[in-house]
Amino acid sequence: MSKQILVLPGDGIGPEIMAEAVKVLKLANGKFQLDLEFSYDELGGAAVDKYGVPLADETLERARAADAILLGAVGGPKWDAIDPAIRPERGLLKIRSQLGLFGNLRPALLYPQLAEASSLKPEIVAGLDILIVRELTGGIYFGQPRESKVLDNGERMAFDTLPYSESEIRRIARVGFDMARVRNKKLCSVDKANVLASSQLWRAVVEEVGKDYPDVELSHMYVDNAAMQLVRAPKQFDVIVTDNMFGDILSDEASMLTGSIGMLPSASLDSNNKGMFEPCHGSAPDIAGKGIANPLATILSVSMMLRYSFNQVAAADAIEQAVSDVLDQGLRTGDIWSEGCAKANTQEMGDAVVAAL
Amino acid sequence: MSKQILVLPGDGIGPEIMAEAVKVLKLANGKFQLDLEFSYDELGGAAVDKYGVPLADETLERARAADAILLGAVGGPKWDAIDPAIRPERGLLKIRSQLGLFGNLRPALLYPQLAEASSLKPEIVAGLDILIVRELTGGIYFGQPRESKVLDNGERMAFDTLPYSESEIRRIARVGFDMARVRNKKLCSVDKANVLASSQLWRAVVEEVGKDYPDVELSHMYVDNAAMQLVRAPKQFDVIVTDNMFGDILSDEASMLTGSIGMLPSASLDSNNKGMFEPCHGSAPDIAGKGIANPLATILSVSMMLRYSFNQVAAADAIEQAVSDVLDQGLRTGDIWSEGCAKANTQEMGDAVVAAL
Ligand SMILES: CC(C)[C@H](C(=O)O)[C@@H](O)C(=O)O
Ligand SMILES: CC(C)[C@H](C(=O)O)[C@@H](O)C(=O)O
Repeated sequence: MSKQILVLPGDGIGPEIMAEAVKVLKLANGKFQLDLEFSYDELGGAAVDKYGVPLADETLERARAADAILLGAVGGPKWDAIDPAIRPERGLLKIRSQLGLFGNLRPALLYPQLAEASSLKPEIVAGLDILIVRELTGGIYFGQPRESKVLDNGERMAFDTLPYSESEIRRIARVGFDMARVRNKKLCSVDKANVLASSQLWRAVVEEVGKDYPDVELSHMYVDNAAMQLVRAPKQFDVIVTDNMFGDILSDEASMLTGSIGMLPSASLDSNNKGMFEPCHGSAPDIAGKGIANPLATILSVSMMLRYSFNQVAAADAIEQAVSDVLDQGLRTGDIWSEGCAKANTQEMGDAVVAAL
Repeated sequence: MSKQILVLPGDGIGPEIMAEAVKVLKLANGKFQLDLEFSYDELGGAAVDKYGVPLADETLERARAADAILLGAVGGPKWDAIDPAIRPERGLLKIRSQLGLFGNLRPALLYPQLAEASSLKPEIVAGLDILIVRELTGGIYFGQPRESKVLDNGERMAFDTLPYSESEIRRIARVGFDMARVRNKKLCSVDKANVLASSQLWRAVVEEVGKDYPDVELSHMYVDNAAMQLVRAPKQFDVIVTDNMFGDILSDEASMLTGSIGMLPSASLDSNNKGMFEPCHGSAPDIAGKGIANPLATILSVSMMLRYSFNQVAAADAIEQAVSDVLDQGLRTGDIWSEGCAKANTQEMGDAVVAAL
């Protein structure tokens, strides 16, 4: 049976990088007989422009019906001043939440060919390969009540709520342990259990789930210490599992350790491994339309899709290998370019991956 | 009139490093005629052992009556298993809150003599001098309600609340602007206004306060991006102002950029600049009692106390200069030692600062 892929190019450089990723995926589709079918829609600012909202109901229905979603990037200064309720990001948050995409996988992998790009010393980051597992549909991002109001004394105040239930923690902990099991069998759960009630439950439930994974070494770390350790000695980590807010912060910090965030894909999975796949980087409005953005993170997101949602390991491996081959050839977009390498634009990079595949 | 200093050595290496800091302060007391008087008490695990609680009422009263407080460090494995309500950290949180120490100053300064210690490339961190201004008595650390409960379906859940009022934001923003004004006139306010209601108010109020500081360049950054930018290009920052939780994470990340957290002091001030002064590092239970801990962060906390609470600029400068001189002499405790330097223990380091002063 054929698989339906919904493509959401999004804003800024999204359409440019997505064009290359789809080109690669279409080639893999033929080569590995994946039987994929494609449809297209808008999310974020592009959806605001077309539908008046960052995620239209019909787009959400299409996303529900699809077997996997490929997303470019959302947001940009064009929509900075609009009503906060329909800002591009709200579309992203809504699709995550409505589709139950609670399991966010964010690898921070340093490509040996790009070791120079890191702001850290080579010996600190050489061989870096961390996976951050971020809870994506709970916590303070979606907690109710949240409100902004004026107090009796005339003062404004606002508050958010950070809730977690046992089942929410349990299922993301399982993702963390499952990932650690097929990697280096080390899981570090990050929380702030010395201060937060939600973190105390988080830690207790992760401990309980750990009983089912005696082969995985579990540790706990406070989020402030984790932010420090990522800078000091990031290679101590294998898999990190953490809540929505801490995961947002730590995954961005970890990705920047590689110095090449233009290379990093991500996956957001539901409980059946249906998912949305997107680059870790943003919509880069400053270079949008110039055809110079790095499409590799989006191409690698395609590989994650094949691996995690469709279990097409051979095809996923082949795409990763093709990306690595292109780096070996010395081809680089501007963001990862260094002395002695050949400069490629977005399309040339996509073409090179196609050729290598 | 004489000034009362309450000394709380705390746990782990706290008593060792505090002994050196007090030695330095007593010398400065004579030399600069500061007219300081000293009293001692316990906080954290040591207070649990002595009083059964991490902050006794009588200690709190003494702290209220004092003109400034010097704190070593709190916590350790000895108290890990006790009732969460009386864990050492609760004493720290309570004294901050009860004394209204809302303004937490955490400098991340790279000493040129220790440039090697950073895990970042020298060109990224050379000359690094950031000040993180963290809101310390509000937000999710103290927000009510917070609860852990069992739902009707038998599932456990827990939640915390992240509240901020206009006046809380206003007063910490002022600290940020005031600090920026006497430094490089750049203030970056960090929030998550694309997701959190409290951050939207935060951003709005900081903007308003900014109208009173036309000479300070104000920018806003999302916390995930800030965590990235600190790794990528930390020298873009001068002063960062942010909430309690984000400040906890970012200040630890920033301090680790220097590679020498054993050098970094901090101040926690109330609205009259009365404050508590402590090193950024923890109680380091693994080396406690060995006499090898680095006392310089605590000695520099003394300098912050003289500068911010007592306006004794000459004495504060002299202590900082003495620390710098000792580094110039090549003296190093183990945590900052590198090839070619002379190794000193805690007491030798304190003595060297005394001699330099
Ligand atoms: C755009 C924003 C709402 C989003 C988030 O905070 O989750 C982004 O930072 C991310 O990490 O995907
Ligand atoms: C010990 C802990 C409660 C404390 C905090 O989170 O504030 C510490 O990490 C700090 O930053 O001073």
